[in-house]
Order: sequence, then structure tokens, then C-alpha cells
Amino acid sequence: MLSRADNEILTRTGPDTLMGKLFRSYWLPVALAEEVASPDSPPVRIKVLSEELLVFRDSEGKVGVIEPRCPHRGANLFFGRNEEGGIRCAFHGWKFSVMGECLDMPTLEPASVPRMCEKARIKAYPAQEWGGYIWAYMGGEDFPPPLPHMEFALVPASHRHVSKKFQECNWAQAAEGGVDTAHFSFLHQPLAESDDQLAERAARATRGYSTQTMGPDHVQWMRDDARPRYEVRKHASGLVLGASRRASAGHAYWRIAQYLMPSHGYTPSATPGQTYHGQTWIPIDDESCWVYVYSWNPLRPLTDEEIEGYRSGGAVYPAMDDQWMPLRNRSNDYLIDRRIQKLENFTGIVGVSEQDAAIQDSQGRIADRTRELLGPTDIGVVQFRRLMLAAAKGVAAGTPPPGVESADSYRVRAGGIVADASLGFDDVMRERFGHALGEF
Amino acid sequence: MLSRADNEILTRTGPDTLMGKLFRSYWLPVALAEEVASPDSPPVRIKVLSEELLVFRDSEGKVGVIEPRCPHRGANLFFGRNEEGGIRCAFHGWKFSVMGECLDMPTLEPASVPRMCEKARIKAYPAQEWGGYIWAYMGGEDFPPPLPHMEFALVPASHRHVSKKFQECNWAQAAEGGVDTAHFSFLHQPLAESDDQLAERAARATRGYSTQTMGPDHVQWMRDDARPRYEVRKHASGLVLGASRRASAGHAYWRIAQYLMPSHGYTPSATPGQTYHGQTWIPIDDESCWVYVYSWNPLRPLTDEEIEGYRSGGAVYPAMDDQWMPLRNRSNDYLIDRRIQKLENFTGIVGVSEQDAAIQDSQGRIADRTRELLGPTDIGVVQFRRLMLAAAKGVAAGTPPPGVESADSYRVRAGGIVADASLGFDDVMRERFGHALGEF
Amino acid sequence: MLSRADNEILTRTGPDTLMGKLFRSYWLPVALAEEVASPDSPPVRIKVLSEELLVFRDSEGKVGVIEPRCPHRGANLFFGRNEEGGIRCAFHGWKFSVMGECLDMPTLEPASVPRMCEKARIKAYPAQEWGGYIWAYMGGEDFPPPLPHMEFALVPASHRHVSKKFQECNWAQAAEGGVDTAHFSFLHQPLAESDDQLAERAARATRGYSTQTMGPDHVQWMRDDARPRYEVRKHASGLVLGASRRASAGHAYWRIAQYLMPSHGYTPSATPGQTYHGQTWIPIDDESCWVYVYSWNPLRPLTDEEIEGYRSGGAVYPAMDDQWMPLRNRSNDYLIDRRIQKLENFTGIVGVSEQDAAIQDSQGRIADRTRELLGPTDIGVVQFRRLMLAAAKGVAAGTPPPGVESADSYRVRAGGIVADASLGFDDVMRERFGHALGEF
Repeated sequence: MLSRADNEILTRTGPDTLMGKLFRSYWLPVALAEEVASPDSPPVRIKVLSEELLVFRDSEGKVGVIEPRCPHRGANLFFGRNEEGGIRCAFHGWKFSVMGECLDMPTLEPASVPRMCEKARIKAYPAQEWGGYIWAYMGGEDFPPPLPHMEFALVPASHRHVSKKFQECNWAQAAEGGVDTAHFSFLHQPLAESDDQLAERAARATRGYSTQTMGPDHVQWMRDDARPRYEVRKHASGLVLGASRRASAGHAYWRIAQYLMPSHGYTPSATPGQTYHGQTWIPIDDESCWVYVYSWNPLRPLTDEEIEGYRSGGAVYPAMDDQWMPLRNRSNDYLIDRRIQKLENFTGIVGVSEQDAAIQDSQGRIADRTRELLGPTDIGVVQFRRLMLAAAKGVAAGTPPPGVESADSYRVRAGGIVADASLGFDDVMRERFGHALGEF
Repeated sequence: MLSRADNEILTRTGPDTLMGKLFRSYWLPVALAEEVASPDSPPVRIKVLSEELLVFRDSEGKVGVIEPRCPHRGANLFFGRNEEGGIRCAFHGWKFSVMGECLDMPTLEPASVPRMCEKARIKAYPAQEWGGYIWAYMGGEDFPPPLPHMEFALVPASHRHVSKKFQECNWAQAAEGGVDTAHFSFLHQPLAESDDQLAERAARATRGYSTQTMGPDHVQWMRDDARPRYEVRKHASGLVLGASRRASAGHAYWRIAQYLMPSHGYTPSATPGQTYHGQTWIPIDDESCWVYVYSWNPLRPLTDEEIEGYRSGGAVYPAMDDQWMPLRNRSNDYLIDRRIQKLENFTGIVGVSEQDAAIQDSQGRIADRTRELLGPTDIGVVQFRRLMLAAAKGVAAGTPPPGVESADSYRVRAGGIVADASLGFDDVMRERFGHALGEF
Repeated sequence: MLSRADNEILTRTGPDTLMGKLFRSYWLPVALAEEVASPDSPPVRIKVLSEELLVFRDSEGKVGVIEPRCPHRGANLFFGRNEEGGIRCAFHGWKFSVMGECLDMPTLEPASVPRMCEKARIKAYPAQEWGGYIWAYMGGEDFPPPLPHMEFALVPASHRHVSKKFQECNWAQAAEGGVDTAHFSFLHQPLAESDDQLAERAARATRGYSTQTMGPDHVQWMRDDARPRYEVRKHASGLVLGASRRASAGHAYWRIAQYLMPSHGYTPSATPGQTYHGQTWIPIDDESCWVYVYSWNPLRPLTDEEIEGYRSGGAVYPAMDDQWMPLRNRSNDYLIDRRIQKLENFTGIVGVSEQDAAIQDSQGRIADRTRELLGPTDIGVVQFRRLMLAAAKGVAAGTPPPGVESADSYRVRAGGIVADASLGFDDVMRERFGHALGEF
């Protein structure tokens, strides 16, 4: 439960907000690289942290994230022509580089151009392509921090898949879904008349995700223990969150997630050798967000089958249209099927991503955290809020945000393991990752 | 004409309004029983008096009208699973009864459940099935009043038909249409080149309604006397409103409506033996309402033909889609046909319900009653406003609302009669109903 | 660049605004005459300067522009029946003339009608049909000024074509597009690999407009001189704005526009004998406007080919649906084609009107003029703003608005000419129009 004031701080990310300043301290993914695929390809309108921006790639392949407003008469550069080293306004031909420099002002006498060009510089955020995404640094400092060394961006392109999905609620409640691994025992659960049916029903409810990450035993453990025990450790770039469930005699099934500043989450299921998944929640405005979704395998290229599955909806990916809008969404109640909810799975909705979206969106455009009844399985959510609120208030007070200066503090992993029930969390971490905080 | 302040009181029915408190003193229909047809059927989202609620029927057939918000993390119980005695939240499995009791909290240690369950009680309004509708009592008292003994709910199910229709304006102007029986001489009038054509044209304009309740003479009397004389009597549960028109020599054609607290209206046409009709206006919010529409015959079951007529649009029922949205509505100007308006009926719109909706909606989302020019035929409207404003102000001052404690004060009828022109209203009432106020 | 206060004055035209008062000093086109084509034809809802009004034509062919609200109970007269000398409210039959007089009150005792009729007068603006449009005078004075003697309204009906188009931005930035003739060198420019291709590409980009008004030389001059020299002269009813570009040796290509109060603009291309075009920007509200578009030839009837071209989209007319909504509009990014923008024309959008709308709408619903960098080619825009702001402030101070009392001050022309480079603007005007200000 939060005070109204803290709920506002947590959820508001516009230009003059505390949380907005915290987000702006980090590099953020703002588009898929494929959206501006080639030199001089069409510019793309984006909205990030309530700011309307334009992404484009110039003739040399450099990427720009700029204010879309031409300083001459205020026309939108989206309609401009992306040509020979810059984007040229369609109204009177003023031209701008990816850095926001004014390169040409054909309506002015040549003599006055140099002086006027200085005044005509437009806001441009440092931008880079990294791991299949376009990233921008929307902070005000001259020198942006290093890009975070998240593993999906470090592996060869053949070893990863990246996409995004639209979500119709505030970023924070979506992110809370990522640190709350307890809900798997309900939201994503299959229903079955016998244990024999369970694995197959789970596969159908999660569109194959459960079979990629769990055996039939795991599904039963998830169903049978709705009260995982949480352990949370803070580290340089965020939190590692472990939750253990009773497994076969003398064993515990641990699912270990990572939350990395400001809004990256790694899912907790993968066992060694399996493909990892992550999500990054980037506010469009305070009532919707893009979830950048990615998968990677450090050991091998992704298979065609994996990629086809991600593209058509599966694992952490919803089935989407060509604008990355999930086909099951708020407007159609996620195609909930009440007969399936009676007989086959707990929600009547198909797909892990869709089930998450349904329940997170249902908390309201912006969840009201002033009325809640939190318990032991909500420890992850509580720690997430403390981390974010402390960091946001810290930035305002001049404290450097966690992890921002250390690219390598992002070199951590998340995943699952069945361990001896007597082992403590630190030992489990060492067994699974070779490091108590998951560093690699 | 009302002051701005009184217009606000009349039209605003949210939680902290005077009129809202008055409405909340009574049982209100909030859904069709068929919307939650069977035990454990899917829950249904409703909005009543600006409150978002959830209706569901539990495994034993009991009906619940509850706040849809799970007190754990604020997820919406609409996505919950209706199962074994309650609805279970899809996020983490907390479960609630139709009374709002928390029945299960699987994410908590069993020892802490009893104490937490107390805190996790959700708002639930007393709910009952009655006359084919689900009714809720949204007042704060422990003991709700008795259900109103309206005749349509007292007769056997075979003797009634119930439905509802969506209307895109404030409840009060729609209700005013029900007490204003003078408008029939215009809004619902046919046009004809000769009197011979009149009855057939009326039938077409009203989609058969006129032939069910009037002979050709009645249609002419309605056309020829646009200034009915009004008589209004207050009784325990509301108002009875008579309006007389000149009929054949020495006779008067009386049409007598009932208005019952807080927002039920009976139509004035039925002669003895004919089927009666009623409407109840329940605010969704201040700019739209559900009109619960019902028909009943105390003497016999409704015929298949009657029911088929009501279902496809006729009498007081519009043609609707399967979500009870009239096919002729604000968005399409009620399919007004200007050629028909020239030649066949006064509005160019087909259907009594549709004609009412068109003109009521046209008064604005919330009619501005600070600029009006009322006359003698508006006496019904004036008395309705006085009744409602006095009752709303009375409730705030501690006066019990009219009729609320007396179920039998709702045992009244409305209808039409051709009477000797010399008879006063009380005698006409006795002749038509055997009682001066229409009691039966 | 304007102060925030002046930008508000320039753009706000509701009932109690300075610019709104200025607009209300003039006759304004408010509908096409064809929208109320014949006596007793259906009434038409319009919104002008943020006021909701109703246009109708009575049995004698007289046109009314009235407040649509029946003073009885506030029903909308749009649903009324237009019959025998007035429009009759569909609710209770009150009837009103084109002058706003109440003609009948059938629900009242005849004795009280005369007194009540006085009170029941509704607001009606003087209205006239003129040049194919319905014009209204929305000022408060008893005696409206004369209608402006704009040439398109003076020529025989066979010599003109009139239409309108919907535009989704504030009126002023659309009007600024009309006085800014410099943008033709970019917004409407073709792209070509060789000069030989240029004229044909221009024709395609402008959907034939360029070939109607320019030879191949003109297209090249437009492309090659992006810095036209501006000359602006104030006259009794507005401004004449000349812009010259370098042409063949020793010559200048002049394009001369007229801006007439309060919001009429004549396009600058026509050479003697060619058909003229004009646009009048009338605010619907502050975020959208109707652009009344017209073409006329003082010397001859328009040809079928011309009219067919205007109807299907060409010259200053966009391709539209039957509600005058351009098919290329804000909602579909004007069907911008990025391949065409690379290869064939500067915007990738087809049509002069569509190109204008795209860039004007892109300035925002209401352009922010507090951040601009104006230069010499923006002199027309600057003079337009000065004229409008001075006139609006003048009206508030009691100064008569420019031109309002002189119908003949609107007898001016605009157009293009290739003149000797040594001639000054006044001499060029005399050569092209026989008068230094374009009077005829």
C-alpha cells in the first residue's frame, strides 16, 4: 500500500516529475531498429515519457531522436523528406541533422543563414542502435552514461529475438507483474480433471510456453504451492528476486527473476541451456506503455521454430497485428472464453502475455495503490516500489541513480532451478548461476 | 423552469448527491435476470448511479451485486472465475461471496487468513431477482426496505415480458417524457390526406402500438386536441396523472399515467383487458441511462405474437441489437427519413420508443431547465419535478422517501378510458380502476 | 512570432472573444446553398464560430439561420418538420419562422398565445443566399452591412463553381497558408531527374493544377528561386501580397494574392483569361474550420471539364466524400507515400489542397506562434497577423472593421504575371490588373 503522494511519484513520468527524471537518467529503448530499417527510410513518430518525438535514420545510417517541430513555423517534421544527411521540412525546406543541427534554410538570404542556424537548432536526444532496438538518452547531461550491458544485446544477433507490444495501462503495474512471480499459480494455471492432463492443458493455456520451460512436475508444483517463499537481494543495478515452492521430497523449485533499473525485468523460468526472456516497460504516457520484449540464448542461435513461435504469439509474446497491438486487448476483453475458464484454464484467456495484460489492465489505467492488502507473496512488489521511490527521490536530491554509470552491473541472469530444500537463497544462486547475485 | 441549482439536484445521481441518495433509498432494477441466467454463469459488468459494479449468480443461484475491485491488488473481479460458491480473482485466487465476504486467500499463511479476511470484505449491495430483473438496494442501511409490489412482478412469469434499452441522455428528461402525455398529439402523430388513412398511418408510425391500444377514433381525438386538460393527484408512492381530450359528443378521452418513486412510469393507453406497459429509468451515469421496459397482462398470459412484437421492436420497445442498443440512435439521427416526415408521420422516425428517444436525447445530454416556457400541458412535468426535488431534499433532512416502506403502495394501475364528459377526474378513476388513485 | 496573448486573440473566435467579435462584424458563408436546396427541404445542423445553429429554407424559399433550441422544453428543432412557412418542433408542435418568430403554439390556450409568442422568439441571424453559398450575419446590430461584392458572387452562376472542405485545424494557420506564397517552392514541388520531366511531375503532384496555371518555365522558376521578394499593400478591405521570383533573363515572375476581411483569400497564379480561385476560412470551433472554396471566370462559363476536375479533386479542391471530408486527411496521414516522396514530389502526398492541409494540420490543432523563427519570406504572414490583430482590437475599441461598410472594396483580383524585372510592384499591379491594388 502506498500513500497517494507516493503512488503519484511511482506512476508519473512526464518531463517535470520525479520518476520522469529517474527514467531520463538511463538509456531507454524507444523503437525497434527495424522500424527505421535503412538509411533515409521514413521517419517514425514515437511518444516516450509523454514527449512526442521523431526517430529517423540518416543517409549514413546514423539514428536521430528529435523534437518533431520545425522551428520556422512549427510544421511537423514527420511529413518532411529524409534525404542526403538530414530531414527537410515539407513546408519551406529547412533541414535538420540527427543531432538537431539546422543544415539548410533555403528561404533565407545566404548571409543570414549562419546566425539563424544557431537559433534554429532543435532538441535532439543522443540515440544509438543496440541489441535490435533504438535507444535514446533523454537526460539533460552532455555526456550520456554507457549503454547497459544486458545479455540480449551482447550476444550475436542470431542468438536473440526482439519485439515490442502495446499495453493499455501505466508502466508500473505492468512492471509489478514482472516481479510478482507468485501469480503464476493462478493467472497462468491450467485446470484439469486429473494430473495426467495438467501438462497438456498448461501448454495450451500458455501457448506452449510451459513446455519450453517446465516439465509436468513443475506445473504441478506451481499449482500445489500458491505461497512461494520470497527472497530479495538488492544489487548495483536493481534487484534479484527468488521465490521457492515445495517440489519433490526434499527439494524446492526456485524461480528467480531480475529487475534492472529503470524498468527491465527478466523472467524466472529458464533452466541452464534454455532461452531467456526479458521485458522492458517504457511509458508512452502515464496511461499506456510499450513493453519491449526480447529473448536470447547465450549458447546458440535461436531456432527457426523458436522465432516463428515468438512472431505468431507464444512465450512472452502475444499474438499481434502489424502495429504491435495485441489481438486480445482491452477493447475485446482479451477474447475471454468463459467455457474455457470453466474447464481448461483459470482465466479463459489464451497466452501468458495476454493473461498478464488482462489482469494488469484491469487494475485501472493507473492502479490505485492506496487501497491494497499486501501479504508475504507481495514482497517482490514491495521491494520494487521501495527501490523505485528511493531512486526517484534520490535523483531529485542529487544521488546518482543505481547502476547508471556501470554498464557491467547489467551482466546478470535470471532463471529457475530445483535445489536441495535445505539450501539458502545465496547457495541456490551460486548453484544456478555461479554467483550469489546472478552475475556472469 | 428550474434554477440551475435545482436542475443539478434533479439530474445528478452519483454517490454524494441529493438525488443519488434518494435513488439509493429504493430497490432498483440493475440488470435483466437473463443476463446472469444460471448458477456460476459469467459475471456481468454494470454501472448504476455512476458506480461500477459486478453482478453474478453463485453456485446456489443467489445473486450478488458487488464492487468489482479485489482488495488484494485491485484487479477487476470481472476476469475472475465464478466457481463453487463465489467469484475467485484471476490474479492470486482470493475468493468472494455474493455478500462480499472473503472466502479464501490462498496466498496467505492459513493462520493469518481469518484476521485478513475480515479486512478483505468488499462492498456488496443486497440483491434479489424479482419480476424478471435483478434488483439491488444501494442504500447504506442494514435492513433494506421491501421490494415494491409493482403488478408486472406480481403476475405469473407467463403474463409478462421484460427487457431494457439504452438511452443516451440524463434519466430525468427521459422520465419527463413518461409523465408528459401531451406530446402524443405531435411526436407520435401520423400524417394523412384523409381521416380514412389515419389509423393505418398511425399503426405504421408507431409500429403497431396504436392499433394495440386505440381505435381509429382515438387516433383522431389525439390529433384533434393538442391541449389535453391535466389532473394530477399525489399518492403514497408517487403521482397519478390524468389528461383528457375531447372525444365523441359528450365524451372525453382520458389517458392516465402513473409515476412511482423513484423512477417508474406506467403508460396511459391500456383499456381494461389490454396489456399494460411500464418503464423504469435507471441512471448509468448522469449522461445516459438504462430504461427497463416491461409489459404485463393481469388476466392472461402474453401471446406469442405480443412477445415477438416486443422482441423485434414495437409498443414501448425499440428495435435493438443483442446488447440492447436501439438500432435507431443518437449516432445515426434515429434513421430519420425526411420524405416520411413530409408525408406519413410527424417525425419521419419509426417507432414510439425511437421517437421518444430522439426528442429526449435532442434536449442535450442533460437538459437545461433554466430556460423553458412551460404551459398548462406541462403540469405533469412540473409536478414530477416538485415531487422529486422535495423527496431528494427530504431525504437529506431525514424525511422518509415516499412509498419506500410500503410495498403495497405500488399496487396501482394506469390506463385509458372514454368517459362521460361531465365526470370529474376522481369519478373517472373510479370508473376505470375502481379506485380514485388507481389502486387494485 | 506572437505573444501568447496575441496568439489567443488571433485564434479564438467563440462568442465572447475579440476575434469572434471581428468575424461577427461581417457576413460569413455558413453553408452551401445546395445543402438547403429547395423550399421546405430538410434543416441542416451547422456550427459556426463555436455556435450550434440550424439552417433551413422555408416554403417561400427564404433562408433562416437560427438557434436550434425550442424555447418550450429545449428540444432540438433539427428533428422538427419544415412545413408551411416555418419549422415545427417535433415534441409539441411550436413553430418558428426564418426570422425566429414563434408562429404557432398549439399546446397553449389561444388567448395566451400572443403574449407567450413574444417570449418564445428564438435567436435568428440575418441570412441570405449569395454566390452559391448561404451567408449569415452573426453580429448584434439591427442593420447588417452590405454583402461583399466578391467577383465570384457577381458573375453569372454558369461562370463559377463553389464547394467547401473540412479542415482539422484552427482557421488562422490555414489562412496563413493562403498569404504565404513562398511555400510553393517546397510543399507543392515536383522532383525530377531532368528539367524535361519537371512539368509532367508537377502536373501529377498537383493533380493538374500546375498545368492549368503555369507553363514548364514557371515550374522551374518556382523550384529555382525559393526566396521570393515580398511586397504587401494594405487596402480598404484587406491586403494585396505580391511575391516575385527570378524568371527568364530580365524578367520576374510575380504571384499576387489578395486577403480580404475577415478571412477570404484569392490564389496568386491565374494569368489573364485563366479561371480564378478563392478560399474562405470559417471557424467551426477553434480546432477545425470549413474552407469555402470557389472558382470563377469573369470572361466565360466554366467548362464541363473544369467542373468535373473540381468535383473529383484538382486545383484548390481535394478529393472528398459526400460530406465534404477530404479522403486524404489527418486520420490517414493524407495517404503519404514515402516512395513518391523519394522520387516524384516533395511531400509524397497528391494534390495541392491535400499538401496544404497536411502541413497546416501538422502545426497542431492550434499553431503555437510563441516559438517561431520568421524571415523575409514570411512577410505576408506577419502582415496578415498585424491586420487581424489590429482589426480585432479595433472592434473592441469601437473602430469600424476594415471594408465592412463598403461592398465595392471587395471588387479586387489576384493573379500571376511575368513582368520586366525593372518594374516596381505598383507598376506590375497596373500592368496585370490595370490598378495598383487590383481593383476592377
